[in-house]
Amino acid sequence: MASAEQQQLEFPCVDLLAERQRALDGGPEPAYDRVVTGYELFRHQGDPLRMDHGGQLAEFQLAYETWGRLAADKSNAILLHTGLSASSHARSHAKNAAAGWWEKFIGPGRPLDTDKFFIICTNMLGGCYGSTGPSSINPVTGERYATRFPMLTIFDIVRAQFCLLDHLGIGRLHASVGASMGGMQSLAAAALFPERVGRLITISACARSHPYSIALRHTQRQVLMSDPNWNKGHYYGGIPPHIGMKIATITYRSGPEWERRFGRKRSDDTIEPTMCPDFLIETYLDHQGERFCLQYDANSLLYLSKAMDMFDLSASAQQRVNDKRHSSVDDLADLIRGMAPIQMPTLVLGVQSDLLFPHWQQREIAQCLRKAGNRMVTHYELDAIYGHDTFLIDVVTVGAAVKGHLENQLA
Amino acid sequence: MASAEQQQLEFPCVDLLAERQRALDGGPEPAYDRVVTGYELFRHQGDPLRMDHGGQLAEFQLAYETWGRLAADKSNAILLHTGLSASSHARSHAKNAAAGWWEKFIGPGRPLDTDKFFIICTNMLGGCYGSTGPSSINPVTGERYATRFPMLTIFDIVRAQFCLLDHLGIGRLHASVGASMGGMQSLAAAALFPERVGRLITISACARSHPYSIALRHTQRQVLMSDPNWNKGHYYGGIPPHIGMKIATITYRSGPEWERRFGRKRSDDTIEPTMCPDFLIETYLDHQGERFCLQYDANSLLYLSKAMDMFDLSASAQQRVNDKRHSSVDDLADLIRGMAPIQMPTLVLGVQSDLLFPHWQQREIAQCLRKAGNRMVTHYELDAIYGHDTFLIDVVTVGAAVKGHLENQLA
Repeated sequence: MASAEQQQLEFPCVDLLAERQRALDGGPEPAYDRVVTGYELFRHQGDPLRMDHGGQLAEFQLAYETWGRLAADKSNAILLHTGLSASSHARSHAKNAAAGWWEKFIGPGRPLDTDKFFIICTNMLGGCYGSTGPSSINPVTGERYATRFPMLTIFDIVRAQFCLLDHLGIGRLHASVGASMGGMQSLAAAALFPERVGRLITISACARSHPYSIALRHTQRQVLMSDPNWNKGHYYGGIPPHIGMKIATITYRSGPEWERRFGRKRSDDTIEPTMCPDFLIETYLDHQGERFCLQYDANSLLYLSKAMDMFDLSASAQQRVNDKRHSSVDDLADLIRGMAPIQMPTLVLGVQSDLLFPHWQQREIAQCLRKAGNRMVTHYELDAIYGHDTFLIDVVTVGAAVKGHLENQLA
Repeated sequence: MASAEQQQLEFPCVDLLAERQRALDGGPEPAYDRVVTGYELFRHQGDPLRMDHGGQLAEFQLAYETWGRLAADKSNAILLHTGLSASSHARSHAKNAAAGWWEKFIGPGRPLDTDKFFIICTNMLGGCYGSTGPSSINPVTGERYATRFPMLTIFDIVRAQFCLLDHLGIGRLHASVGASMGGMQSLAAAALFPERVGRLITISACARSHPYSIALRHTQRQVLMSDPNWNKGHYYGGIPPHIGMKIATITYRSGPEWERRFGRKRSDDTIEPTMCPDFLIETYLDHQGERFCLQYDANSLLYLSKAMDMFDLSASAQQRVNDKRHSSVDDLADLIRGMAPIQMPTLVLGVQSDLLFPHWQQREIAQCLRKAGNRMVTHYELDAIYGHDTFLIDVVTVGAAVKGHLENQLA
């Protein structure tokens, strides 16, 4: 009676996950611990870094890389802010020939022109590629911070970057440039230090996180925190939260591009469908998740994901961070007041196919800046098909807008 | 030296999940096992139900409920198809006074007018509210099917429903009506049995699942299947995959409505932010996930989620289901050919704020039907703010369109 209705389905993807998990037990250190991208190291000691939510770091370090030459008057520096998962390695150089995450955007004649500008890119505070973050050793205890690391904000990240600028003797930036979480940072830099930011570029970002984005990140964090191996953040030296991290980092950034690239194609259309990855889009996501989860620290993801949720340029939110009330009044006037310091020439880029940071959020940035009296706001809405990742890919349209904004002679 | 930077963060949400999990060990049967909504039971015996992917069910049962009276000539029946998680209880009645999932849409004078029509709603095959599904006892073995249940498709679900219609002696429906996964079923019914479907209504659905939707459901399934308690589907009698199910079912259906309802409000703005649910949108999602996961069977979710992914009305896909090759040629002409049988008056509704089934997918349905020669296609695009759930909420706009389409006298 072994009829068709009694056949047990097979789940090779579940077996594979269990196998990988076993292999990680006592296995090699995670990849991010071994990443040295040829970065320089800035060590901040002396005054502790006091953070928005009451924590502090007695000392911290930032990994950073630079391209081009700093002018004698130090007027040609551009601070490039990264997205959540990127290292300071934005472009290849003598110490590290590997391609960087913005390889085609940086170089002689490129959008960030190294013949003209001195580009600085840091691994952000809270990250895991050389800068102080949850996976770093706490100098006070000699142990990794894990979830004893203080809660941090986009503003904290930017303040740490400006400590580096102080160290380099750079008073005023030619520009602050960033996309995605980096676009939040460039906005925060302009709001916090308006006199030190000459021009601003913010790409595929927002002026405050909206419920849909919070919902997406909330789900990712819950997936990760529910992995027993996460162990409230204390997994270093044990089995990392591999499964939770893998699934948490399955992002679904694009729409139209996937339609063209994957459509409804299956990875093997000679076999019956299964519950395990089956459509090409699924094997693609599975592979992306597997790759990323071995390269990034789970606790860094948690802290930086939460920092994005809390990002809000509204005046009341910025004040309340200081006096410990954090809800923002939901009021456009409040947001406009908070963005009032941002009066430098600003380029806002949005992509119509972006599902993570929908283009109405970039429109909101541009509108608020204009209502706050900024008369030099450029807002381009791109029809690229790559969704949120467009800024990484589309050097033709994104690159030209960036170059134009950085080099345009202003009366 | 107990400085601020050494304070361990607290994670009450993780503790709570662990506690709930312990409470479920040997605890009461899940809620869905106890749901008897006052449904009738149709038992199909005799010919086995042969399924698209090679499996079969020697027998099966469908839970169904009805409203209104079947005319003597049996010409006034409407088959109402449900979304993934709904039971057959679409409206309250004498045997069960609880409000149904389409309570305001059914009744005297309502969009589905019980003075005129005889409405039938089933719990779909594969579900867990009275119909045969993975949590049912396999009569052959005396044990629950679990993941020995055969893979099933939207077409299989519809064929089972038409067995019920045969049993009731209903040859031709006045209409086949459904939203979301139910809107896939109503389309499938019209394509499979065009001579038996008088009018068609499909709301917030699609003619074939697209990569973005597959990506979302893929992630949900991976979350669920990675919960050790899921145990490849064999959790009945043990601890159910509570955590995996809870997180898998955190959906993020709306955008604009959340903006108005939650904005950036926090659940308690007198305390510092935490990694656990903190913003109102997070506590809302957390609560929704907790509620749903106790009411629905995890294996039903897996099977029906996969059935949605595989849904494709393209001619080649429909043929290949039969000869065991399942990839569809990515070709609009192919889809138009597959939809050619659907020549009855058809209402297609889409909602601009729908992120799960974007409105271009409903436009695709309408365009393909028209290109296939259907001259009675009505397509309304709604500007409601409730996203995918609009069909459950907006009786004013959705209801009027439904009523008009069902009652309009056709020359």
